[in-house]
Amino acid sequence: MRTQVAIVGAGPAGLLLSHLLDEAGIESVIVETRSREYVEARIRAGILEQSTVDLLHTAGLGERLDSEGDFHRGIYLNWPGERHHLDFVDLVGRGVTVYGQTELTKDLGRARQASGQRILYEVTDTAVHDVATEQPFVTFVGPDGQAGRIDAEVVVGCDGSFGPSRAAIPDPATWERTYAYSWLGILADVAPSTDELIYAWHPDGFALHSMRSATVSRLYLQVPTGTDITEWSDDRIWDALATRLGHGQDGWTLTPGPVTEKSVLPMRSFVQQPMRYGRLFLAGDAAHIVPPTGAKGLNLAVADVALLAPALAALLRDKEPALADAYSETALRRVWRCTHFSWWMTTMLHTSDDPFDAQLQLSQLRWVASSGAGAAGLAENYAGLPIGY
Amino acid sequence: MRTQVAIVGAGPAGLLLSHLLDEAGIESVIVETRSREYVEARIRAGILEQSTVDLLHTAGLGERLDSEGDFHRGIYLNWPGERHHLDFVDLVGRGVTVYGQTELTKDLGRARQASGQRILYEVTDTAVHDVATEQPFVTFVGPDGQAGRIDAEVVVGCDGSFGPSRAAIPDPATWERTYAYSWLGILADVAPSTDELIYAWHPDGFALHSMRSATVSRLYLQVPTGTDITEWSDDRIWDALATRLGHGQDGWTLTPGPVTEKSVLPMRSFVQQPMRYGRLFLAGDAAHIVPPTGAKGLNLAVADVALLAPALAALLRDKEPALADAYSETALRRVWRCTHFSWWMTTMLHTSDDPFDAQLQLSQLRWVASSGAGAAGLAENYAGLPIGY
Repeated sequence: MRTQVAIVGAGPAGLLLSHLLDEAGIESVIVETRSREYVEARIRAGILEQSTVDLLHTAGLGERLDSEGDFHRGIYLNWPGERHHLDFVDLVGRGVTVYGQTELTKDLGRARQASGQRILYEVTDTAVHDVATEQPFVTFVGPDGQAGRIDAEVVVGCDGSFGPSRAAIPDPATWERTYAYSWLGILADVAPSTDELIYAWHPDGFALHSMRSATVSRLYLQVPTGTDITEWSDDRIWDALATRLGHGQDGWTLTPGPVTEKSVLPMRSFVQQPMRYGRLFLAGDAAHIVPPTGAKGLNLAVADVALLAPALAALLRDKEPALADAYSETALRRVWRCTHFSWWMTTMLHTSDDPFDAQLQLSQLRWVASSGAGAAGLAENYAGLPIGY
Repeated sequence: MRTQVAIVGAGPAGLLLSHLLDEAGIESVIVETRSREYVEARIRAGILEQSTVDLLHTAGLGERLDSEGDFHRGIYLNWPGERHHLDFVDLVGRGVTVYGQTELTKDLGRARQASGQRILYEVTDTAVHDVATEQPFVTFVGPDGQAGRIDAEVVVGCDGSFGPSRAAIPDPATWERTYAYSWLGILADVAPSTDELIYAWHPDGFALHSMRSATVSRLYLQVPTGTDITEWSDDRIWDALATRLGHGQDGWTLTPGPVTEKSVLPMRSFVQQPMRYGRLFLAGDAAHIVPPTGAKGLNLAVADVALLAPALAALLRDKEPALADAYSETALRRVWRCTHFSWWMTTMLHTSDDPFDAQLQLSQLRWVASSGAGAAGLAENYAGLPIGY
């Protein structure tokens, strides 16, 4: 089949891109290795920056977000004996919205379906071809076992770190950092014990109290990379969360509840550049991975797409290549800012074996919590920089 | 002999302490292993925070500082192709003053001599005794080979990292970080090529253009720890400085000149706590060492002394122990703030073997140079927090 833009991957980046392209009158086809049900149920991020929320509104995707999203003015920083609230709205004039990636993916899926978007789910052997020419194409095998081919003017890789698009860029520069710790994350059917997220430093390791809704909590514990999840019973998890999050401190209590999902998430920083080669463009995890601390991953994918959609519209509709030519460099400025911020939040909050690190972390936390400049620095990065930063 | 406060060490901390105690009517005696000439000629720090300048003024030590010190509104951050000025005065309302430690030590030495301060230079075998009692004493051997003893109500260790005072505190907690790099520093008889300090990140390593006066420049290069200084000819040093500092960038030039002093300075972070045990108090390098990036060492010693002098006056004159009891905890708040800041400036600017670090550093530098919060965060720490922070 033939289209203007072949998109590899139907996660939030690919779906949002097809949506924005459609609005600009550009036709696209998406191929995805997973099923729609899998994609929409996949538990991932849950914190939207203001610029992400604004973009979704402008794109007509704000209705359920408005009714079900939960606006947060800031976060809590906690360490033994102390809890401090950072009010991002006071500090930098914007906050964040709690809205699960699952919900966003459902909204996007419904909107694309309503528009008649062609999405081919459960394909295998996806490969991108001839991206150095103006006639690139994507091949795949459909769920029926039939070989398929999409001829396009542009191919966009929204297929994450393990998809085929990234490898189609010859001789990229790559940077990677792995961490000695992972996150053990749970979903629990219990009302959150806090109105806004608690990021907690503790000698035993980092903990995070997040949430998905008024009745669903999402909590995380720092565990060593390679941790066997069967060693962590629900009771052990709740005990560790209570200790690290400060249960009993100034009368605050953590209320446990039934655990409905439990997994260990490795943490990694990764950047590949350039993000464009000929007629192939990368967006989201296909080009960069951040550790989850600071909640940048989904927002960064949205920011990529927010740059890429108008760039492709200008290229394909108006034959104007300037934005497309600038895409990689422009996107990478924000990518590196968020890569640095995610690394900074991560290394400030996760304990290591070095006792000097612990003192540096506590000193930095005290400074961030007490200095206007320190607090504003965290706030402007966490609440998110403007698109095009 | 007998006095109220026996001070070990006649560097800036010890001299300033004796000066402030004298103003408060408290008598002291200083013992020092080096000669007065050596102490006054020793090349060390050269950047005074506003709070240090204010304290010296209040203590009547501002005359030569005013006429010969050079007020700087901020610093330059440089990396290949870019130079940014951070104006601390605009950002946080205060700047720094360039005034060599040698000059400050001379001012203090003259003031102490004029007041008849007893300072015993070139003593050996200094030891502190019975500090857990209210009758502590210091023993030493004078330059004439005669054993001496100072009985006091309080002993203060201002004797640096290698002096005997630190070891007289039993079972302290200590933290240490060494760095894989050192500074190769030169003094040169040439007018500075810049009006304010240039902190430069470069793939070859960090460089710093500082100065001592209108005719004397002080410059530094990051070199691997263990570097043999004989491998660095003056020409090689100037070439490396030109490359790293951006010679030729936007028309800026580095003017070389005769090198009058050349040395390699290892870099270390170290903190020992508590800073008080019984009747022994530590101030300055005796309790903490910072790497020189960010110019905190001398200022931190002055901040310790600014807390300690009134605390000892209250203890000895008014029999009021509250400030002395709070000294260690109060001083350590600033110590850890400056320890973190010095580590942060150091790790932001010094290159490592990891290419990911370089990208994090550049992203952070761009953020500090472009974000009001980022710039203010550096400025408030560099220009210095108020005494008692």
